[in-house]
This record gives sequence, C-alpha cells and structure tokens, in this order.
Amino acid sequence: MNLMKSLIPAAAIVALPQMGLAQEAATGEPAQHTQYIFTTLLFLMGGFLVFFMAAGFAMLEGGLVRSKNVAMQMTKNIALFSIAAIMYWLIGFNLMYPGDGWTISGWLGPFFSTTVLDPVGVGADAAALDYASIGSDFFFQLVFVAATASIVSGAVAERIKLWPFLAFVVVLTGIMYPISGSWQWGGGWLSEAGFSDFAGSTIVHSVGGWAALAGALILGPRIGKYKDGKVHPMPGSNLALATLGTFILWLGWFGFNGGSQLAMGTVGDVSDVSRIFANTNMAAASGAVAALILTQLLYKKPDLTMVLNGALAGLVSITAEPLAPTLFGALWIGAVGGIIVVFAVPMLDKFKIDDVVGAIPVHLFAGIWGTIAVIFYGEASLITQLTGIIAYGVFTFVAALILWTLLKATVGIRVSEEDEINGLDMAELGMEAYPEFSKG
Amino acid sequence: MNLMKSLIPAAAIVALPQMGLAQEAATGEPAQHTQYIFTTLLFLMGGFLVFFMAAGFAMLEGGLVRSKNVAMQMTKNIALFSIAAIMYWLIGFNLMYPGDGWTISGWLGPFFSTTVLDPVGVGADAAALDYASIGSDFFFQLVFVAATASIVSGAVAERIKLWPFLAFVVVLTGIMYPISGSWQWGGGWLSEAGFSDFAGSTIVHSVGGWAALAGALILGPRIGKYKDGKVHPMPGSNLALATLGTFILWLGWFGFNGGSQLAMGTVGDVSDVSRIFANTNMAAASGAVAALILTQLLYKKPDLTMVLNGALAGLVSITAEPLAPTLFGALWIGAVGGIIVVFAVPMLDKFKIDDVVGAIPVHLFAGIWGTIAVIFYGEASLITQLTGIIAYGVFTFVAALILWTLLKATVGIRVSEEDEINGLDMAELGMEAYPEFSKG
Amino acid sequence: MNLMKSLIPAAAIVALPQMGLAQEAATGEPAQHTQYIFTTLLFLMGGFLVFFMAAGFAMLEGGLVRSKNVAMQMTKNIALFSIAAIMYWLIGFNLMYPGDGWTISGWLGPFFSTTVLDPVGVGADAAALDYASIGSDFFFQLVFVAATASIVSGAVAERIKLWPFLAFVVVLTGIMYPISGSWQWGGGWLSEAGFSDFAGSTIVHSVGGWAALAGALILGPRIGKYKDGKVHPMPGSNLALATLGTFILWLGWFGFNGGSQLAMGTVGDVSDVSRIFANTNMAAASGAVAALILTQLLYKKPDLTMVLNGALAGLVSITAEPLAPTLFGALWIGAVGGIIVVFAVPMLDKFKIDDVVGAIPVHLFAGIWGTIAVIFYGEASLITQLTGIIAYGVFTFVAALILWTLLKATVGIRVSEEDEINGLDMAELGMEAYPEFSKG
Repeated sequence: MNLMKSLIPAAAIVALPQMGLAQEAATGEPAQHTQYIFTTLLFLMGGFLVFFMAAGFAMLEGGLVRSKNVAMQMTKNIALFSIAAIMYWLIGFNLMYPGDGWTISGWLGPFFSTTVLDPVGVGADAAALDYASIGSDFFFQLVFVAATASIVSGAVAERIKLWPFLAFVVVLTGIMYPISGSWQWGGGWLSEAGFSDFAGSTIVHSVGGWAALAGALILGPRIGKYKDGKVHPMPGSNLALATLGTFILWLGWFGFNGGSQLAMGTVGDVSDVSRIFANTNMAAASGAVAALILTQLLYKKPDLTMVLNGALAGLVSITAEPLAPTLFGALWIGAVGGIIVVFAVPMLDKFKIDDVVGAIPVHLFAGIWGTIAVIFYGEASLITQLTGIIAYGVFTFVAALILWTLLKATVGIRVSEEDEINGLDMAELGMEAYPEFSKG
Repeated sequence: MNLMKSLIPAAAIVALPQMGLAQEAATGEPAQHTQYIFTTLLFLMGGFLVFFMAAGFAMLEGGLVRSKNVAMQMTKNIALFSIAAIMYWLIGFNLMYPGDGWTISGWLGPFFSTTVLDPVGVGADAAALDYASIGSDFFFQLVFVAATASIVSGAVAERIKLWPFLAFVVVLTGIMYPISGSWQWGGGWLSEAGFSDFAGSTIVHSVGGWAALAGALILGPRIGKYKDGKVHPMPGSNLALATLGTFILWLGWFGFNGGSQLAMGTVGDVSDVSRIFANTNMAAASGAVAALILTQLLYKKPDLTMVLNGALAGLVSITAEPLAPTLFGALWIGAVGGIIVVFAVPMLDKFKIDDVVGAIPVHLFAGIWGTIAVIFYGEASLITQLTGIIAYGVFTFVAALILWTLLKATVGIRVSEEDEINGLDMAELGMEAYPEFSKG
Repeated sequence: MNLMKSLIPAAAIVALPQMGLAQEAATGEPAQHTQYIFTTLLFLMGGFLVFFMAAGFAMLEGGLVRSKNVAMQMTKNIALFSIAAIMYWLIGFNLMYPGDGWTISGWLGPFFSTTVLDPVGVGADAAALDYASIGSDFFFQLVFVAATASIVSGAVAERIKLWPFLAFVVVLTGIMYPISGSWQWGGGWLSEAGFSDFAGSTIVHSVGGWAALAGALILGPRIGKYKDGKVHPMPGSNLALATLGTFILWLGWFGFNGGSQLAMGTVGDVSDVSRIFANTNMAAASGAVAALILTQLLYKKPDLTMVLNGALAGLVSITAEPLAPTLFGALWIGAVGGIIVVFAVPMLDKFKIDDVVGAIPVHLFAGIWGTIAVIFYGEASLITQLTGIIAYGVFTFVAALILWTLLKATVGIRVSEEDEINGLDMAELGMEAYPEFSKG
C-alpha cells in the first residue's frame, strides 16, 4: 500500500511543487493543490470505511461465539481498536515510516509524539503538496493496524482472559506490526527486493493470521471441542449478526483496497481506484459463490458460515493485487480463496487447532494465496513473493509465540475451567449480552 | 439514471476533449479532468452506499421472517448479491448498454467478457474524459441490479427452495433486468419516447416487485397464513434488526438517487446532487410519518413494521424524480407512498397473496406511484409514464411467471410441508440462526 | 460549526466571486468552482455519515432497554428522525439562520417554505460560489438537529408515552434547538461574544442532555428502579446491538466533526478535516480505554456499557474543539470524558434520576466538559465558555421543563403502571420486538 513519499525520487518532488497552473495547462491533469485534496479525501473516505470494519469484526465474531461470550467479544473488539489507535500514535506510526523521520513528534520528546500532523490552517506552501495531508495518511494507516488485531480476537475467543489479550494487542499494534510493516510499506528491504502486496494480504491479513495461530496453539482448544476423537461443533449464537458483520467488512474493503491506491488526483489514479472497487467486489462475490457450491457438493447442504467466510477469503485473496487483474482474474482468485476456506476449516480441526471464527483460514491461508496470486497479473516473481510470505510468517509467528508464552508463564492467558464453562461474560464482566433470552 | 455517454450528441464529445484549461477560463467550471474525477468519485461513493443496501435488505428481511428461517434468508441475500455481481459482469452490463459496443470484453470472446474497464494507469488521452471511468460506472450499475434481486427474496421468503430461487436470480440479473433496463438507460425505445425514471422507481423497484409478485403467486402462501377465511399474522422475529435494515436502506438511497445524477463535476451538478439528498431524505421521513399517523388512526395503535415500510415506500416514490420537486413536493409524494403501503398490505392479504416483508406494496405499488408522480414536477406526460409502467410490468411479470412456472415444473420451487413447518434453516442448511434462544 | 456565510466579512465575498482562474494562478489553490464542489461534497459526505447516527442511536438504545420495550424504542427513533426532518424544514432552518433571510421560502408564503434550495441545474453565476450548495448545507444541518432529539429518547425510555414524546420532539427540533442554535451558528449574541463550540458539544449534545434531564425529572424513575433505598440495575437486553450502535455513532462522528470544518476546497481546509478525523478517533479511543481501566479498578470487573459510553463521552468531549488540539490533547480530553461517565452514572442514581442509557452523563456532562476544554487549545476564555454553557443550559432546561410539565398536565406523559410492567411494546404497539424468544 504505502510507498511513502520519501521513496518517490527526490527529483520528482523537486520538480512538482510550484508547477500549479502550468502543470495543468500542459498535461490536462488537475493542478497540484487539487490533486492533494483528492488524495487526502481518498484517505479520509478509505479511512472511515476501514474504521467501520471494526464494527464488522465485532458483529462477525459476536455472531459466531456462543451467547455466554458475546459481551466479552464486544468488549475485546472495542478495546482492541481503542488500544490500537493509541499505540499506533504513541509508537507504531513512527516505527513503521522512519523514512520521514519522526513525522509525528511529541510530548515526551521526539520518540513519543504529539505535535502532530499538519498545523492547523496549513498554508499551501507548508504542506507536502505532492501527496496528501499527514493527518489523513496517519488515520488511514491507523485503521489498518486495528484490523490486524481484530483478526486475532476472533481466533482466540471464548477462552482467553481479557487483560492478557489486550497486552498482546499493545505489543502487536505498537511494535510487531509496525516493524514488519516497515519492511515493505516503510520502504524497507522487502520493498527493495521487489515484494508486492498492494493492500496487505500478507502485511495485514496473514500477519494477523500468524499471531492468531500462535495464540490458538498456546491457548489450546475450548473445553469439549475435541473429545473422544471427534470434533464437536459449537454453533455461533447469532448468524444474522455474523452476516451483518460480513457485509460491513465487505463494505470496508472498498476503502481498504481502494484507498491503498494512495492517490486519486489524476484521471489514471481515480480510474485505478474504480478498477480496484470492481475487482474487490468480484473477488468477494466469487469467494462466496465458490463456498456455497462447494459446501453443497461436499455436504449436500450449503453452509452459511462457510459462505460468509468464503466472501471474506475472496476479499483477502484479492488484497495483494486488486488493481492489475481483469474482472475474470478477480473472479478466479477470489473463488480459490473461497475454496481454500472450505477445505482449511476441517483441516485445522484435524490438528485440533481451535479457531472459533475461522480467522486463520480466511486471513492467513487466503492471505498467502493472494500474495502468491500476484505473480499471475502483477510484476512480482514467485521467489520474491515467497520470500515475503516466509519473512512475515517467521517474524510474526515467532514473536507472537514468545509473547503468548511469556504472558502464559506470567499472568496466565486462559480463564479457569469453571469460568469457561459458565461463559466469560458472567465470569469476567459480570454481565450478559442477552440477559433475558433463556438458553435452549 | 443512465443516459449513457453514447447518447450524448457526438458533437459535444468532439468539442470537449481537449478544452482543459481554456474551458475553465471561459466558464469558471473545473477543467475536464477534474470533472472526470468528481463524477467517478460520485459513482464510487454512490456505489458503496448502494452496495450496503444488500446488508439493509438482509437485515430487514432477516428481522421480518420467523427465527426458523433467518439463516436461510441470510444465505439467500449474500448469495443473490454475489450471483448478481457475476451475472451482470458475464452478460448483463453489455446487454444493458449495447450503445458502447461490448465495453467489457472478454475471456470467451467479445460476448463473455474480462479485459475490462479502463486499463491500469490509463493516461488522460485514453479515457472517456467527458464522463467517468468505466470501472466506476460498471460498479454503480452492478449494485443496482442486486437491489432488484433483493426485492424478490423478501416476498418469497419462508417457503422457497434455495437453489431454484438462485436460478431465478441468475436469469433476472443476467438477462431480464438488463434487457428491460436497456429500453431506458441503454438508450432504447422508452428513452426515445420520453419516459422519465431518474433513478429507477420503475426500472429497478417495480421490476423487482413484479418479479416478486409472480413468485408469490406461483408459490402460494405460507402454510397457515390464510386459514378459515382469516389472515393469521406471522410476526417477524427481530424488529430491531428490521429497523436497522431500514436505516441502512435509507442511507444507501442517498447513493442510489444521488449517484443517478451521473455527474458531479460542475457547480450545477453538485447542487443537483444536494437537492436529491434533501428530497430523498424528506420523502422517507414523510412516508414514515404518514404510516405512523395512519396506522394510529386506523388501528388505534401505530405499527412499527408499517412505519418502516412507509419510510421505504417514501424512498421508492421519490426515486423516479428526486431532483425536480421542491421539498414540499418530496414531502407529499413520499407521504402518498407511505399511505399506499398501509392500505396495500391488507389488500394483498385479501387476495391471499403472501408477501412476507411487504416488498410488493413498497417496491411495486409505490414504484408505480412514484413514476406517475413525475408528471407533477418533471417533463414527462402521463401517457408516456403509463406506457413505461405497463411495458416494464408486462415484460417482467410475464417473463417471471414463465420462469417461475418452468422452475416449478422441473426442479420444484417449494420446500416440503414438513420442511416449511420445521423451518428452512434446519431443513435446507442444517443450522439455526439463533441456536441457543429457546422459542416461546 | 456554522459561521454562516452571512458572517463572513462582506468584503471577502465581494472580492472572491469572479476570481476563478486568476485566483488559482496566484495562490495555487483550486479555483472557486472547484472549491464549491469540494465543500458541497464535504456536507454531503458528512451528512450521510451523521444521518447514519440515527441508526446508531436506535441500536444503542434498543440494546440498552429491556426486550419488552425494544419495538417502542425503534418506533421512537425512526419517528423522531422523520419529525425532525420535517420540522427543521418547516420552521427550524429559517429560524436558526435568519442571517440569510428565509433561504428556503415557501408554499404558505415566506414562513413555511418550499421553493427550496438552489434551482435545478443552477448556473455558476447563480450560486453562492464562495461557500457550498444550500441543499447540502440544509441537509447537513438537518441531521444535526435529529441527533439532539435522539439523545432525549434514550434517557426517557421504557416509561414515556409515544405521542407526547413526539410532541416534545416537534417543539425541540422545530423551535427550541433552532432558537438557541442561532445564538452561535446563526451569528447571534454568543458568537459575537466569542463563544467557541466547533461542532456542538454544547449546542447539540448538552442541549439534548438538558432536555433529557428535564424529561427524566418530570417523568420520574422506572417502577422498581429505586426501591428500599437501593438501586436495582435493569440490564439492557442486547449488548451486541448496543455495541453496534456505538460503532455506528463513532463512524458518524467523523462526519459530525469533520463536516463542521465547513470547507474542504483548499489544502489548509482538507488538512484540517484530516486533523479532526484523527483527533475525533483518538478521543473516542481514550474515552473507551479510560472507562475500561477505571471500571476495572473501581469494580474489579470492566463494564462493557461503561466502555461504550466512555467512547461516546470521548467523542462528545472533543466535539467542541476537534481541530486545535494535538493528538495528545485529544487523548486526555477524551479520557476525562470517559472518566466523567464512570462517576456520573452512579451519581445520577444517587439522586434517583433514572437515565436509561446514560445519555445525561455522555451528552450533558461530557458536553460541558468538552466546551470548557476548549480553553486549553482554542482561543476562547473560560468566562465566555461558561456563559455559553449556562445560557444553553438555562434556556433549554427551563423550556423543556415547561414543555414536559404542560404535556404532563394535559395529555399525560407516562404510561400506566400496568403498561409499564407489561412493556410498552405490547401496551402501546401491540407487538413485540422478539416475539419468539422466551424471556428468562
């Protein structure tokens, strides 16, 4: 997503600033200030759409856990977004984009930061006119890191303690994600190596998936999930809510992928954003249809949760390259994502990895697939793509394993058996999400 | 909505392309590239808002069916959107807008299409600079066709089989809607005759309504709905969800009607979009208030589902002409829509036509009303408007009747009596939407 | 929010109109028509985001009332928005912005209005080119007044009669809010006195809060809430819905605060909108985290409803000055808001003021706090801010007290004891929100 402006050849920057009217006359494109406004607007629109994905994750996860854990899942989701917002400001953003120096500088000196963003009423001469406002860029980046944390919360639901989970989020959003993110979007070694991940199939989604996998492994499965050699399904309590969550995520993805074009001030850029919208939508649709048909064929009955996860897997799959493919390309890339989910969910169960909402198939497996699929339409080579996939995987998985293990060894990460059986809502919050509806 | 660029006098196109700066100097309006970006942005924003209506329909319908059919209603809604997305790409778009030749050309030759949209990084000289990016236009059209299919799913809920319903959606979105849509928005005979339907009261909403009516007739009512000469109400399972769905649809309608201005690059166009927003909102508000007051007067108690449908009927009513009316015009047009719904719902029951969510009153009856109401503020004559209404009605109703009958005669369209009583969720999906909440 | 264009020094207006191209050449900023389009677009985007807050309030309140009152809460929320839309057109807008004369003039003469907004297809020479389209401005203002009414509905839930409540909404949105709003945003005495309230911590939120407080006092608490000297909690029926509502409100707040910049046509303005987005998000996040930590410390268990209200209080707190603070400023201002809520909710209970959803702590107390906090980053003095806070408080509280008392003395405002115990849904609407879920 983010080849920061620091990576644009200095010559281009030097050349552009004062062109203004002359530039427009020559190329027909809008003048630089107008381009700045359009691109900033893209970040703001993309940003609020991706922000809303926080609600999407909350509804999806709240619908897929059992009712005794819904209030906790809500608490985790609003808390993780809030923590991500604070940590990414406090440390993350500067860690991820060192190319600009400490853009957002601070209340505890340059490292912890506050003076912030563009000054109020910034004059045209003061702004980085070749890009967009720092505030909009910061906001757009911030909502991405929150998505990463949301992925984790779904996989480790129904058994993890609240505070250790939030401690994990602090490190993930403040340090882990920004460090690995900087390899590519901060202009680091992977971007120099030619790795290609347009909006973050790997950098956002599989990073979330790896952290989730590590958590699910260290935590172990929910009580009763795998007993006597059998898998015992634990159906979600509210599939209407889960469907709503999926639609909200789908909506947010237009901002996620479209905003990652990082420019909207020329005819070419806005047309690219349009292609991205169309491709993103197509991949989601084909992922859903693939899962629908496949579950019908395999199980004789379509499976709604698979269809929802199929749509999401289609979205994750197209995220690494939503621009270059044709609509047919988006269709088959998304469909493969949907198929992966249908096979991966039972496979995880075979390994007794208990992923409550299917976050690992959707975000990790389809994320890997999407990153590989770039080679069919993009410029990247398979080797480079695999290098990136492995680098993110090893770093995130190992760091997450260490962190989960540390948390387990110190404060403990799992609620007591009794609390788990009674539900986290009563045990940890002392309240219920649906106190009046008697349980069947 | 869509007087395609192919219909704009060729002279205008020839004149515009290279004006750029000169144009701006002369008229004060933004230069052509800037206009292109604004209009494309209108389609993208309008598009994501209308996309979100898919969630609105799902929540509305999910809230108005009984809990034993909620998971199925979710499955149908996400599947129908996905299928519409694929079919409209595969066939529909090209069928509807033949004026451009096969804009989206393809993987199986010109008919089935993939190369798609504008090329990546399109240069200013390559694009259709007098309009907007093809990708954004395609995306905007696509979300409209999905709305048509959503209308059907509500009316035939709680008794139709999944796969035959989806087969109907394939034909509706790939062939039926595009053919009749081309009569007006593709520059066909109705547009030449002077028919006026700004954003689709007839072309989208009553088309959906006619298809729904045909379905409801062929299917017959739900078991127990009309027994011993009485109407037995079957209350929706979740009115909070239905209300959420209504608000989401209302939100999406700003994109539906506002985006149908098809231009945002001049002072006049953006002011028109603003009028449309204000009028659309007013019609929804007055439809809701009319239904609120009328149900109080008729039944001594206000009826929430009527209020929700009243708001939607207000929206449908203003859709044929959201621009020309004054706010007072929008108010009374919307109010009449709300009133129509309050009387039409029991009237359908008299004819034993079982429309689960009230889709026929809202989309068909208010759609006809809205199309007629154009004569009070727009340019169209009553004769022309009636011609359009009848043409769409006859074509869609007959085609839908044939299709439903064919499906009934071959694969069957209705679940068994036992399955209907037990609920489609367990029978067809093997899962429940709310597995833990015991039924009262 | 609204220093109307009538307040802009006349000289500036005179100077601007015909600059067009010359202006762009000189300053590098977009030409005037382009600026007009950008600012209009800001109002349209901000407007639909704030519109969606109506759904947010409905879901928040629907989730926090008991299930027997959910359908009524839905009815109130959709009805109050609709009434606000009509009343604000009929009277409110003109009452609030008299500086322009009766901008929206009408069907019953100049007072009741319809001709409306900019004419269709307005030419560049006809529009107020230094600002934005009247339609977009009207729409943006309209959705604000609806928010004020939504605040009231939450506080007086579960015991107030529908029609008297709606009568209160008629007066609040048509007369009370517009009169007091004009003191500041209509260019009245408070704006001249230097009072500062960027997007309405006082003008919108505490006005809603004062009206709610008066209502809660006159109505009295729900039966059983305070008995034998104890507070009996009445837990909300659906915390997933309440969480969704909070996220939707958070989303809408980007439009609420961002749109209140009232301009997006220059590099400086769009950068300011970006700062506002980032600050708004930060204040919500810190409000949520503050409430999370504080409830853990005070009660040993985090409280989800407090976290939700903490986020909202953070949002209300930053609303009076979302632009000037640094991100660190937004963080601590929002955190104080979250802390206020945690202490204010039990304090209200001590006074036996029964505020069902916590609207008074969130909108009134945090609104006052936010208005005071302006002095730390803005230009205003404490005296001026207190003057504004008191003026709005006295006027709204007294007017609301009188109105509630009048309604109580005439038609009565409270349902019968039996109806309250049985729930308003069955008593007043004859329907249930969740008819199939048996109550535990």
